[in-house]
Amino acid sequence: MIHGSMQDYPLTLDKFLTHAARWHGEAEVVTAQEDGSIGRIGYAALRERSLAVSSLLQSFGVAEGDRVATLAWNSQSHVEAWYAVMGIGAVCHTLNPRLTAPQLSAMAVQSGAKLLIVSADLLPLARSIVERAPAIERVLLIDGAADDWPASAPPLDRLEDLLAVARGAATWGDFDECAPAGLCFTSGTTGAPKGVTYTHRASFLHTLRSLQADVMAFTSRDAVLAVVPMFHANAWGLPFALPAVGGKLILPGRQTDGASLARLIAAEGATIGVGVPTVWLGVVEHLEATGGALPSLKRIIVGGAPMAPALMERIEKRLGATVQTSWGMTELSPLGVIAPPDDPHRSPTVSGRPAIGVDLLLTDAAGTALPEQRGIEGHLHVRGSAVVDRYFGQDESATDVDGWFPTGDLARIDARGNLAITGRAKDLIKSGGEWINPAEIESVVGALPQVSLAAVIGRQDVKWGERPVLLVEMADGEALDDAALLAPLAGRVAPWWIPDAVVRLPAMPLAPTGKIDKIRLRNDYGGA
Amino acid sequence: MIHGSMQDYPLTLDKFLTHAARWHGEAEVVTAQEDGSIGRIGYAALRERSLAVSSLLQSFGVAEGDRVATLAWNSQSHVEAWYAVMGIGAVCHTLNPRLTAPQLSAMAVQSGAKLLIVSADLLPLARSIVERAPAIERVLLIDGAADDWPASAPPLDRLEDLLAVARGAATWGDFDECAPAGLCFTSGTTGAPKGVTYTHRASFLHTLRSLQADVMAFTSRDAVLAVVPMFHANAWGLPFALPAVGGKLILPGRQTDGASLARLIAAEGATIGVGVPTVWLGVVEHLEATGGALPSLKRIIVGGAPMAPALMERIEKRLGATVQTSWGMTELSPLGVIAPPDDPHRSPTVSGRPAIGVDLLLTDAAGTALPEQRGIEGHLHVRGSAVVDRYFGQDESATDVDGWFPTGDLARIDARGNLAITGRAKDLIKSGGEWINPAEIESVVGALPQVSLAAVIGRQDVKWGERPVLLVEMADGEALDDAALLAPLAGRVAPWWIPDAVVRLPAMPLAPTGKIDKIRLRNDYGGA
Repeated sequence: MIHGSMQDYPLTLDKFLTHAARWHGEAEVVTAQEDGSIGRIGYAALRERSLAVSSLLQSFGVAEGDRVATLAWNSQSHVEAWYAVMGIGAVCHTLNPRLTAPQLSAMAVQSGAKLLIVSADLLPLARSIVERAPAIERVLLIDGAADDWPASAPPLDRLEDLLAVARGAATWGDFDECAPAGLCFTSGTTGAPKGVTYTHRASFLHTLRSLQADVMAFTSRDAVLAVVPMFHANAWGLPFALPAVGGKLILPGRQTDGASLARLIAAEGATIGVGVPTVWLGVVEHLEATGGALPSLKRIIVGGAPMAPALMERIEKRLGATVQTSWGMTELSPLGVIAPPDDPHRSPTVSGRPAIGVDLLLTDAAGTALPEQRGIEGHLHVRGSAVVDRYFGQDESATDVDGWFPTGDLARIDARGNLAITGRAKDLIKSGGEWINPAEIESVVGALPQVSLAAVIGRQDVKWGERPVLLVEMADGEALDDAALLAPLAGRVAPWWIPDAVVRLPAMPLAPTGKIDKIRLRNDYGGA
Repeated sequence: MIHGSMQDYPLTLDKFLTHAARWHGEAEVVTAQEDGSIGRIGYAALRERSLAVSSLLQSFGVAEGDRVATLAWNSQSHVEAWYAVMGIGAVCHTLNPRLTAPQLSAMAVQSGAKLLIVSADLLPLARSIVERAPAIERVLLIDGAADDWPASAPPLDRLEDLLAVARGAATWGDFDECAPAGLCFTSGTTGAPKGVTYTHRASFLHTLRSLQADVMAFTSRDAVLAVVPMFHANAWGLPFALPAVGGKLILPGRQTDGASLARLIAAEGATIGVGVPTVWLGVVEHLEATGGALPSLKRIIVGGAPMAPALMERIEKRLGATVQTSWGMTELSPLGVIAPPDDPHRSPTVSGRPAIGVDLLLTDAAGTALPEQRGIEGHLHVRGSAVVDRYFGQDESATDVDGWFPTGDLARIDARGNLAITGRAKDLIKSGGEWINPAEIESVVGALPQVSLAAVIGRQDVKWGERPVLLVEMADGEALDDAALLAPLAGRVAPWWIPDAVVRLPAMPLAPTGKIDKIRLRNDYGGA
């Protein structure tokens, strides 16, 4: 018996921009430029330019599966480069300018990129990278002009100059939807960076998930400010999601201070802002100082870090926008869970629920599913169409035998299905055979107004195996004695969880992503 | 070089109900039952029952790829049957009870279904079908009890009785996402019915498209009344979309008159209603007669027929809900275009825009793309992940060489990208070598309050080839002479489009779907 069939329609990312060009050709991508001016282009024109970049890349020998690295901020040129690379089946390897040249060159060596696209202001960093990554044969400059480039380095061209005389007519698509499109390295605070390969299919499905009314809910009438960087897990997918619905995409370039963002929101009528909590704190502080208001802003989507309740309340009150919490990981493309827009039950203490396409499972330390999945803490495992199966260049799977990816996070899911991340499994302290979760202690001590940053690590102990030690960086001019620092823990955690010692640090060591560098803390303070 | 990869996560429809059971287990599917009571069940319990039905089907020998026919209304049992069939990789062939036994048995013979699931009130029709479709070996009864079933017919069981003693533990999924899940025959008013095979992948992607904030935008807080029948292009995908977000699904059973729907909307707090325009007219007329109100209702999604401007205004005013127009086809799963929710530019004269995943192309009669796609009428072609490639049991493709499906519709797309269907290509009249579009004439004459239904067909003509003839069914007690019927056409259509003759019919012949039967009109009135 012959069944019928539906059309073969590969889920490739070029379709987003082509759809935008056809149906929302005048909807804009705007960029805050270095000189303070605003660059703007419609999706139809952006697609034409991006196709021309594809032709250029092909003229340089870039073919399907080849990696092209980018070292750039959120800008129109960076978006054009993405679609140009991905549209011809090459792989866009985004480098994080906040890492060091040795770190970035190690990643570039691993990816084997032969071409680097770089923002003009990052040229000194790019130079250090190419010195250490000899496979890079050519550098293309965007968002500015080069002032100095050594003759010994690979040839550098300004992309705009080449586009002015570009020939060729690249076409997009026509490869398998499971082909790789992007590559992003986790900047592990707890291990070596690992590359996550985003496939066309995975990012396409991630986009469709994001667009749901209960998820990010973007529409053609929205203007979305993408503060989250494009080098950070695809800017949470915004350069795919906005063209897919024909919404306006607002890119802040390099300036993400409160004043710059507030100016951009006001000038471009941003309806939704997306970024980590601290950038919104910057906007709030700017408005408080200047007395301004941002009436166009309706929603703020946060993620990437826990949301302090006081900060959430302050943001909502001062910006007049509702906050959507979320949780994700580079390995999840990145969205895991999110609170629905304007959820009357929204709370800073939970991150939200999974949408269709993301499965969550809580297990014990051995990876066995907990019989009860609600109301108790477990090790969080994830499965889904946009979840890593195998890291770049590795033979073995990143998942367990049942196909679940172990996140390394500890989490709890409440009765309404809301996920709360409660700690990192690797940070757990084993004391007398029982586990202590540093994150719970840190959240209590860190809530003290006198404390700037708090971290808890395990110190080797002959009797107990490990015992917790509290490390604090005090806020400017503030002081508290040890008893006062530990006092709020009484009744909030088990008595034996209370740290044995307090260490004061003039400055907490931070990893390049801004997270506390626990590896270093354990090295320096974890000995017996 | 070894690339990394993302997880293999087949897009199979069972995932919707499994997701709902896990994350929205208490959200309900409610059914208006024959006796006037409301049946209700949570998604978690519905999934358990549906799995038990799967086990039963397997015990009857139903295997992957087998067709199971259903002849039923929108009810919980029908939803359970769908997921039970599709979850084990079998194919759910929905039969339209409004067709005749010869038509339905011809479809059942073509699909080769060996099992028929039937609503109790449709048992007489089922009996006529099984007499003509000898492959049907077994009949399962839902939504009521059997009063009479001949011993000579295939064995009949009440599904509920079997479930009470059911054993077995079926599991869902674990087949290719391109496997067929559903089968629906077009009930062609212009040709033989053709079967459209819905694959898991196509309907999964169709669902994700529907859930976008600019499309149907369902959320977990919505309660959606599905008036559009499950035997009509998957009830526009509602039995997939509501579990996917954990929204409440309200099923009206067999009663879709205005009074029954109004009662159901009020009792269950429906926020969104989905169905053809005439059902909402029924609700409006009921409210006007009774003076009631339906404050919970925020939105009405219409499709399946053109929307008269006066009716749209009347619905919006009386129901206090905004209307979303849409256009689709059985071959499109069915959604083609839709107006966004609460679009300030909404208009009854257009159907809306395509969301990502649906490509539209206007061509000339030969299938060549029109150089200009906006503002002029063309033949509408469609491409996408949920568009038919090949009809059931056919060898040849339903698409052209470039993969486009020719809809047979004429359409125009305005500057904002909104599609308006302007006629059927097959209905066009060729007069003196030029085309006349009957739909334009029909819409003008049909807008006269004295006219109930208007149709225009071509009559053979020695000199011109064809000339238009107007056929009208007048409203009760109304009369207009020919000149008065044709008068509004002056200045609205070209003078040579004005029909040469008017024929009055006591009752317009209708096809089983309610559309005007133009084949019969052409047979009866198209001769020279």
